[in-house]
Amino acid sequence: MTQNIYDQEDFFAGYSRLGRSVKGLEGAPEWPALRAMLPDMRGRRVVDLGCGFGWFCRFAREAGASSVLGLDLSEKMLARARAETTDPAIRYARADLEALDLDPGSIEFAYSSLTLHYLVNLKGLIETVRRALVPGGGFVFSVEHPIFTAPSVPGWVQGPGGRQVWPVDRYLDEGPRVTDWLAAGVVKQHRSIASYVTLLLEAGFALTAVREWGPSEEQIAAVPAWALERDRPPFLLVAARRS
Amino acid sequence: MTQNIYDQEDFFAGYSRLGRSVKGLEGAPEWPALRAMLPDMRGRRVVDLGCGFGWFCRFAREAGASSVLGLDLSEKMLARARAETTDPAIRYARADLEALDLDPGSIEFAYSSLTLHYLVNLKGLIETVRRALVPGGGFVFSVEHPIFTAPSVPGWVQGPGGRQVWPVDRYLDEGPRVTDWLAAGVVKQHRSIASYVTLLLEAGFALTAVREWGPSEEQIAAVPAWALERDRPPFLLVAARRS
Repeated sequence: MTQNIYDQEDFFAGYSRLGRSVKGLEGAPEWPALRAMLPDMRGRRVVDLGCGFGWFCRFAREAGASSVLGLDLSEKMLARARAETTDPAIRYARADLEALDLDPGSIEFAYSSLTLHYLVNLKGLIETVRRALVPGGGFVFSVEHPIFTAPSVPGWVQGPGGRQVWPVDRYLDEGPRVTDWLAAGVVKQHRSIASYVTLLLEAGFALTAVREWGPSEEQIAAVPAWALERDRPPFLLVAARRS
Repeated sequence: MTQNIYDQEDFFAGYSRLGRSVKGLEGAPEWPALRAMLPDMRGRRVVDLGCGFGWFCRFAREAGASSVLGLDLSEKMLARARAETTDPAIRYARADLEALDLDPGSIEFAYSSLTLHYLVNLKGLIETVRRALVPGGGFVFSVEHPIFTAPSVPGWVQGPGGRQVWPVDRYLDEGPRVTDWLAAGVVKQHRSIASYVTLLLEAGFALTAVREWGPSEEQIAAVPAWALERDRPPFLLVAARRS
């Protein structure tokens, strides 16, 4: 079972204070890029893998989805997600995504934001999503970028020539990376870009878009500290379609 | 026009001494991985974009290709390639890949090894290859990995925790990178992985495989110094098919 760090008091408190928790989708700098990769959701059955506070589930309904299933491992997050809506077409359920069961052909679109890098058994989930999608159904997700997750000691350091650099090592050494982010001992699974792509292709997806997200000029003008994120993209965004 | 560094005396002399120049394909550590991505070439018309000394052209003929066209910008390399074969089904021609013309539907398979990262106008070449391929035709290529080409000052440095790290910056800042490799002032074009993938998808290719090459355990046992290449893959290998 995936580490349930979001239900740990200190992590949950810290996470609840992030821009993306307070402001929702608009508080996530990668959201405009991710939104541009979404299909038309009108009349579609949608699942959100790692729904958190339910921001995307509510967005999907506003965008016309006929039903939305939000899944998360965190009781605390689901409790808040449930408290935020009375829409009967949005349903929340607790689920360990590493052992997920979804009815074949039961959804037209699957979404996941910054969740899949927590999973050891990503292959199993991708196969489950593929079976759950109708032919032609879409899958859009974001993960922490493999360049971001690779290092044994992540964090900007002074590099040659005086610039800040991101100290990449262990890129091809896939597996757990333990960091202290909001709380001590948060476990994420590092994978290469090729592994994400290969898992999709081997499960029977066609790749339709890949983005390595960095802030736009407008975003840097608004938050100058973000400029550094263009030196090492923090997020990988992927769109695929069931063949 | 792409910089013709291979025809510069010092570069050519240095390049001619590399393992991959002396031993051919077997001298290139990524060759087994790239070979595994090739389609059946029997009876197929093949083009090699950046053929160098013609090792792959001769391999393709041995593997059953009906004809092979080897293209390169370097007169020196083409002269040696021509001297290495008398096979009338292998033809060599000088070409600037940024302004290439190939007859539509004239080939079944296109190949390129460590060449595309020299091109400014890669979009044009990919569109040309797409038109030249018959429907279902394949395109397999290798390039220097974007993590390898990104840094403003490439080269291993001492990182936090005492490990050697690769100092990544400017990853999303695409464009020329000038390094002193075999000769001073070699210009390569840095692109993100997403850009390579997007150029292919937008030109009408389906992605069929992506590999980020690092040495195998057997290769590290044979050449221990290669272990470091697993910390930061040097090559990106891509296979695509004309939709």
